[in-house]
Amino acid sequence: MADGELTDGLYTEEELQLAARNRGMPLEGLAYELTPTGIHYLLVHFDIPLIDPTTWRLEIGGNVERAISLGLDEIRSFTPTTIAVTMECAGNGRTRMSPRALSQPWILEAIGTAEWTGVPLRDVLSRAAIKPDTVELVFTGADHGVQGDIEQDYARSLTIDDALRPEVLLAYEMNGRQLEPQHGAPLRLLVPGWYGMTSVKWLTRVDAVTEAFQGWQQAVAYRDTQTEDDPGVPVQRIKVRALMIPPGFPDFPARHRLLDAGMVTLRGRAWSGRGEIARVEVGIDGRWHDARLDDPLGPFAWRGWSYEWKTKAGTYELSCRATDATGDVQPIEARWNTQGLANNLVQTLSVTVR
Amino acid sequence: MADGELTDGLYTEEELQLAARNRGMPLEGLAYELTPTGIHYLLVHFDIPLIDPTTWRLEIGGNVERAISLGLDEIRSFTPTTIAVTMECAGNGRTRMSPRALSQPWILEAIGTAEWTGVPLRDVLSRAAIKPDTVELVFTGADHGVQGDIEQDYARSLTIDDALRPEVLLAYEMNGRQLEPQHGAPLRLLVPGWYGMTSVKWLTRVDAVTEAFQGWQQAVAYRDTQTEDDPGVPVQRIKVRALMIPPGFPDFPARHRLLDAGMVTLRGRAWSGRGEIARVEVGIDGRWHDARLDDPLGPFAWRGWSYEWKTKAGTYELSCRATDATGDVQPIEARWNTQGLANNLVQTLSVTVR
Repeated sequence: MADGELTDGLYTEEELQLAARNRGMPLEGLAYELTPTGIHYLLVHFDIPLIDPTTWRLEIGGNVERAISLGLDEIRSFTPTTIAVTMECAGNGRTRMSPRALSQPWILEAIGTAEWTGVPLRDVLSRAAIKPDTVELVFTGADHGVQGDIEQDYARSLTIDDALRPEVLLAYEMNGRQLEPQHGAPLRLLVPGWYGMTSVKWLTRVDAVTEAFQGWQQAVAYRDTQTEDDPGVPVQRIKVRALMIPPGFPDFPARHRLLDAGMVTLRGRAWSGRGEIARVEVGIDGRWHDARLDDPLGPFAWRGWSYEWKTKAGTYELSCRATDATGDVQPIEARWNTQGLANNLVQTLSVTVR
Repeated sequence: MADGELTDGLYTEEELQLAARNRGMPLEGLAYELTPTGIHYLLVHFDIPLIDPTTWRLEIGGNVERAISLGLDEIRSFTPTTIAVTMECAGNGRTRMSPRALSQPWILEAIGTAEWTGVPLRDVLSRAAIKPDTVELVFTGADHGVQGDIEQDYARSLTIDDALRPEVLLAYEMNGRQLEPQHGAPLRLLVPGWYGMTSVKWLTRVDAVTEAFQGWQQAVAYRDTQTEDDPGVPVQRIKVRALMIPPGFPDFPARHRLLDAGMVTLRGRAWSGRGEIARVEVGIDGRWHDARLDDPLGPFAWRGWSYEWKTKAGTYELSCRATDATGDVQPIEARWNTQGLANNLVQTLSVTVR
């Protein structure tokens, strides 16, 4: 994933291919408390697999008392739960590091919030009875390809403690409708508060294991490392971030913003996978002002904010930054890492008021 | 839109910004006869507007006997019709011209097929009674911005003959559900067989006019021109094209394809806005073979095709090309134009069989 020789501001054919097939949420989509399904961000490492839901089974095995196999109707027979969850790609902000890693070239748009419906993973696992010496669960998806020179089905693990949290779901609906294929149909893992790579799509297997999983997506990818040889630390929970709806209207193709003088309500949303949003500030040419916070939508979802800006003609640099209940605040300079992960550098945008 | 100084194979920040917010259909999505809504291609010139459907009105005026204003319930009270329509962006294939235009950097993925439900435009227009000296209808959307140094609501026109065709709809549902905001909610124009720019989203006005519309999106953009000063010809109906589901599985990030030796069924879909699909051929290292055509899905939708390929280990260049009932066949060299429009150059992809 790391490269370090890409030119700032110029993107390669490989990056364009990825940007053309993966998709971000246009930032005006921050207007919706729940993101319309078709503009929720999406990242797929390999291909979207073609799965027949009538023959699909979820296999639960490994270090368990009873290996089990469940069809979709059996999964649906458990008591369902619905949670609003803000999901973000761990690579969001990647192009705002220099030098950048060769991977999906996200700017800021790898986000979305949906209501997900499914069954708590722990309810389903109780049928298989995980043995006491289990340390992790490995989640395997149907998407298959080569990454890091290794042929693989996409797979990630969670410790038992993380996997058994009540909010961790096996999800089969998004925004009140059956999952669309690209979001993991017929069934995906959903791990609220964690970056999106954890929420394995197109789930086919859950395996209890007695040693930490060493799969490529776990042991090599999604780690905050400073060199190619640095084992680094795993990237897990979403770091605090606020984003702003770009005010006014854009030009095409540059997307510079133009707006009319007077009172302008700046709006956006903020979230963290590590604690409640405690504060959002709006920066106007480097001076910070407290924004008003809306009521929370839920413990795993973004929170709306607004700021009344009385403005007159001129060009301004706007920004926003959030602080969560742990005291974490977004940085104003990116902290670099080889894979371009978890970059929650504050958003800045230039606007012209007329 | 034209530029001519962009480096082949390297894309600018402006192009990346566009690719990050607009979205193509990953080509494995060709597996679905009807494209899941969330992977249908999407191009938005300005911002997705935020519209309250309860207060929204469609105004029909200009050169009519009776200017009228209709709410969504009134539109829905007309007898609805549902049509499967393949839509393609006029800029699809833009990056495969050299030098390329600075605009949305599509490769091949600006496509999708959906079932659209709405009312024939002509049924609604009959209430307003267009005057006989009308030459065009102008369709205006709510998306607002600056393009070509002109501040504008996105607007396009059709001649009376084109607008009154029975398949031209005012559409409010896509794939059996209310339009999502990004696809033009609450109401969009739908012009089957034409490139997507014609199907104005977020429709607010229809105006009958007695002279040809000179708006920027009509008179300047979406024209096949050879120089900046060339008036050129308007780009209208979709040119014939076939695309193939990339076989086997990919690597990340390069997306080179790997597959196993033996019998491989190559599949894809083909369409034209100018006539039925008459033939699809599959190229293997430059030798062409006839593919089998599936039954048609409808007069305005793509048609499935397949080819049984007995293959052994090696690296191959695959391609596909379609011919429509008018005799048009896809070219094997791109015909250049300044805006990078309507490039139906055959798809090629390299695969390694193991």
